[in-house]
Amino acid sequence: MKSHRYCVIMCGGVGSRFWPFSREDKPKQFIDFFGTGRSLLQMSYDRILPIVPKENIIVVTNAKYASLIREQLPELEERNILLEPARRNTAPCIAWAAYHIHAMDPEASMIVAPSDHLITGEQTFCDCVTRGFEFIEANDALLTLGINPVRPETGYGYIQIGPEVTPGINKVKTFTEKPNLELAKVFVDSGEFFWNAGIFLWRASVIIEALHRYDSDLTDLFDKGLADFGTDTEERFISQNFEACPANSIDYAVMEKADNVYVECARFGWTDLGTWSALYDNSQSDESANVARGAQVISYGSQGNIFLTPDDKLVVVDGLSDYIVADADDVLLICPKTREQHIKQMVNDVRMRFDKKYL
Amino acid sequence: MKSHRYCVIMCGGVGSRFWPFSREDKPKQFIDFFGTGRSLLQMSYDRILPIVPKENIIVVTNAKYASLIREQLPELEERNILLEPARRNTAPCIAWAAYHIHAMDPEASMIVAPSDHLITGEQTFCDCVTRGFEFIEANDALLTLGINPVRPETGYGYIQIGPEVTPGINKVKTFTEKPNLELAKVFVDSGEFFWNAGIFLWRASVIIEALHRYDSDLTDLFDKGLADFGTDTEERFISQNFEACPANSIDYAVMEKADNVYVECARFGWTDLGTWSALYDNSQSDESANVARGAQVISYGSQGNIFLTPDDKLVVVDGLSDYIVADADDVLLICPKTREQHIKQMVNDVRMRFDKKYL
Repeated sequence: MKSHRYCVIMCGGVGSRFWPFSREDKPKQFIDFFGTGRSLLQMSYDRILPIVPKENIIVVTNAKYASLIREQLPELEERNILLEPARRNTAPCIAWAAYHIHAMDPEASMIVAPSDHLITGEQTFCDCVTRGFEFIEANDALLTLGINPVRPETGYGYIQIGPEVTPGINKVKTFTEKPNLELAKVFVDSGEFFWNAGIFLWRASVIIEALHRYDSDLTDLFDKGLADFGTDTEERFISQNFEACPANSIDYAVMEKADNVYVECARFGWTDLGTWSALYDNSQSDESANVARGAQVISYGSQGNIFLTPDDKLVVVDGLSDYIVADADDVLLICPKTREQHIKQMVNDVRMRFDKKYL
Repeated sequence: MKSHRYCVIMCGGVGSRFWPFSREDKPKQFIDFFGTGRSLLQMSYDRILPIVPKENIIVVTNAKYASLIREQLPELEERNILLEPARRNTAPCIAWAAYHIHAMDPEASMIVAPSDHLITGEQTFCDCVTRGFEFIEANDALLTLGINPVRPETGYGYIQIGPEVTPGINKVKTFTEKPNLELAKVFVDSGEFFWNAGIFLWRASVIIEALHRYDSDLTDLFDKGLADFGTDTEERFISQNFEACPANSIDYAVMEKADNVYVECARFGWTDLGTWSALYDNSQSDESANVARGAQVISYGSQGNIFLTPDDKLVVVDGLSDYIVADADDVLLICPKTREQHIKQMVNDVRMRFDKKYL
């Protein structure tokens, strides 16, 4: 029996925060940060396989990463790779995927997930997603996953829950911006706020309808291609029209406006791995509280560092604590963990001096 | 007209102080520390060429560096490379070179110089060495070069001068061990003390005579080979006898005992490059007082560091001052300059954990 469940993995990010370990031609989602042999993208793919058949898994990415996708997910059929000709944030990406899937399967339900987050507790994840599919298949709902907040994180958006409509699933009361620390503590203590993980479930028809209501500029554009989606001319239609989409996030375009938005409160481990500190916190540290990926480390009076190096490199470090040391072949970065928000500026400085050479 | 002037470059050192940039299979003297395209050995060779014809330049090294010598000094004839089958410090090395040269040219005068020091002011060096040759050709003297001390260095031995015997050349009053800082300051202020650079000039016959008088164990051994030196059987004689030489320095074996020892007060720039700090002090620093060999450096709040990396590597460093950062392919060392005396211990720790892998 053909499954009507689909997965859309969003894989177009070019984050520079992990530079020099992530590069313009190999961003974060393609990197095996944990030395497991699988990149974040591959882990995202592996994670959904028990729920969605592989012929229903679709990866949306920027055209320039096509060969990386084929290399990392050789089992993916060519027609399941959607190549965006331009970067336009999540709303156009999700709209395209929804139109594409709906054209092939009008009964389709879908989960949309980023490719560059880390999730632990795979079975909990599977149970949660399965419950989510059942909910949106029975309801005209836009469902988002809310993560039980384990610390007053100021780097994430939060979702405030309203009344429970079915066990574990609540109406969304509000989406909030990133709070300051004081407010984040209040959020966590209240038990009413969950982290916004940017993972969504809905039927293709339901999100298309919501887009029509809340972002008609976008649907006006995609509706012109209704005869193309799911056919040989889809690619030509996208190449001629996608760039015209205004860049917009799905949160802003739909989720914060619609009234059929629900949140499933999830208990699996989650991080967007948006910072070196998050990477540090999610990695196994040695007896000196140093984290090493690739490196053999001998340390003297050195704690709390994170070393990312080529495989099997020996790092001997003395009198260095709480630093990021990233050695990526032609670039070596040494930077206090507390200064990681400046890496973006550093990357800009590198671009000014060396153009694209080290990026 | 055949020149009777010879040069012996001592090239057998295996110093681990510059690990991981210097390695057991490529020690300090073979490294191009300054990015000039010439290693310290090659610079030593180039420096003496205006004074000593190349057929009279002899390199003494450990057998395991034979191929490195041939690679770095391809113009050197095979018979001018003396390969020690064992490491026995400078006295046996110099004795062999003196017997070897004397067998070929009984009138030979010679300069003996280390291969891993840095000398600046080549013309001053040439003038000084030429004056030295003239002195020892006219006198049965053991001449050492004393460097005008420009700071109260505690890492060097000092030579106290006695009466001047000819302009710029004095009788040696005493050789001293490495002084503490207070004493070193007194030495420098006195004007009577000079750094012992370990560069010697003498006639081959005169040093052989001095060795007979002050280290007869050594000459007893070498005298057995008098029929072999300068012939096809020299190599066999050395392979059968050299290891029996007790390890000893020429300073201890002869210079501190003989009464015909003189010092020429030299004015060229000299350092034994025995420490990373010496390397730092002798290198051009950028506007942030960082020194880089190989690296392109972008620094933020970082001063006084020394970066040794593969050519053209980009180093981005934030909040790091007065560190040694040495990136040598399979090893990365990050260590405060003040801790460099511990590098030897680190190398031992590496050997304990990884055997020879990273050495």
